[in-house]
Amino acid sequence: MNSFKTIGIIGGMGPMATYDLGMKILDNTVSTCDQDNVPLLIDCNTRIADRTKAILCGGADPVPELKKSAKRLEEAGADAIVISCNTAHYFYDSICEDIDIPVIHMPRETAKQLAEKGVKKAGILATDGTCKAGIYGKALEEAGIEALYPSEENQKAIMSLIYNHVKAGLMDFSDVDIEGIVSEIQKKGAEILILGCTELPIVFDSIGGATLPAIDPTVVLARAAVSFAGAPLKE
Amino acid sequence: MNSFKTIGIIGGMGPMATYDLGMKILDNTVSTCDQDNVPLLIDCNTRIADRTKAILCGGADPVPELKKSAKRLEEAGADAIVISCNTAHYFYDSICEDIDIPVIHMPRETAKQLAEKGVKKAGILATDGTCKAGIYGKALEEAGIEALYPSEENQKAIMSLIYNHVKAGLMDFSDVDIEGIVSEIQKKGAEILILGCTELPIVFDSIGGATLPAIDPTVVLARAAVSFAGAPLKE
Repeated sequence: MNSFKTIGIIGGMGPMATYDLGMKILDNTVSTCDQDNVPLLIDCNTRIADRTKAILCGGADPVPELKKSAKRLEEAGADAIVISCNTAHYFYDSICEDIDIPVIHMPRETAKQLAEKGVKKAGILATDGTCKAGIYGKALEEAGIEALYPSEENQKAIMSLIYNHVKAGLMDFSDVDIEGIVSEIQKKGAEILILGCTELPIVFDSIGGATLPAIDPTVVLARAAVSFAGAPLKE
Repeated sequence: MNSFKTIGIIGGMGPMATYDLGMKILDNTVSTCDQDNVPLLIDCNTRIADRTKAILCGGADPVPELKKSAKRLEEAGADAIVISCNTAHYFYDSICEDIDIPVIHMPRETAKQLAEKGVKKAGILATDGTCKAGIYGKALEEAGIEALYPSEENQKAIMSLIYNHVKAGLMDFSDVDIEGIVSEIQKKGAEILILGCTELPIVFDSIGGATLPAIDPTVVLARAAVSFAGAPLKE
């Protein structure tokens, strides 16, 4: 029996992004059998209200269900929590409020890693909620990195990729000019793209990557989870 | 907020098969946004000992951890439980012992569906543990269906697909004559293949299916879970 710590995942935002995180935890662990892997408790809580709608237009409050998930995971035995949704990090302080276990902060972990690589300007692809609330903006600023955003029109196309495609289960992205979005933010000076919504790595993985170097915060989070658990990290 | 029932998954046997079940629940639900999906609690419990080793050669007992997972899921709010491992159904009665919520039985659900289709002879591809313990054999017998098994040599190749490939994260199956395995069991009279280990649908999905009609018990279980939860089932 392994003696790794247990990682709790607040998931369901959306479900596909939750399994993508699970697969990335698996892919980043040195393992040859089931028992070599990190034990996980995953709360795929589809009762959590839409985060972007709550931040931008007075939609239903996701906080009560986010807090319920955090408490449920702690009570079930999780030693740390990760949240498989970037936008939900807007509510990070509330999520931490009633629990005594650490919550790994995906945007801050990502910014830290970019700073270590010497990045000065990073392009952010994320939901309207994540962008307007400055979730990555603040994390990057703390790390001394300038945040660049897509044009209004391209931001609409990104929201369509997230909501009308991945979250709706429609995985044909041919109606969106993804290359145009990337090239616009590259022209603004971005050295690297942050795929700052857990649905976006799913898009880019399925089209074979971006034309600009990209960082996948889901992988950063997966590796932070494996490290915290004390399991051997794949190089 | 949706009012679906919550499904608990005893998972981690292996982790990849757990996410495969999650994706199949998602794929079989009519949904256009996160909140249209079934809430799930997934205990990816990699502390559960190997089921086949316990059944066949006195390996560590998986029952204590299987029971812990069932209790944990019930206490966390699951309304029913599914087990994303066929071999673990050998311990079904013990898993049910200390909980008051139903546990959906994957092999019995699969046999029921085959009987409804009028199948008389089914080929079983599964672990040594599942085959020798007669987990599908008994479920099929109750449904009036004859169970057919691969030759000893082909059974070894199936164990290699499960243990040396999927559970070890090595997804190149070119060293195994999968077509030969299928054709041998077809010659014995099988009208349909049961992919009776949750790792095997992952193999067959990745090679584009089998040359004989096949039933994927993970899909049967996913659809049973969606129905139980009260969410709209995709046709």
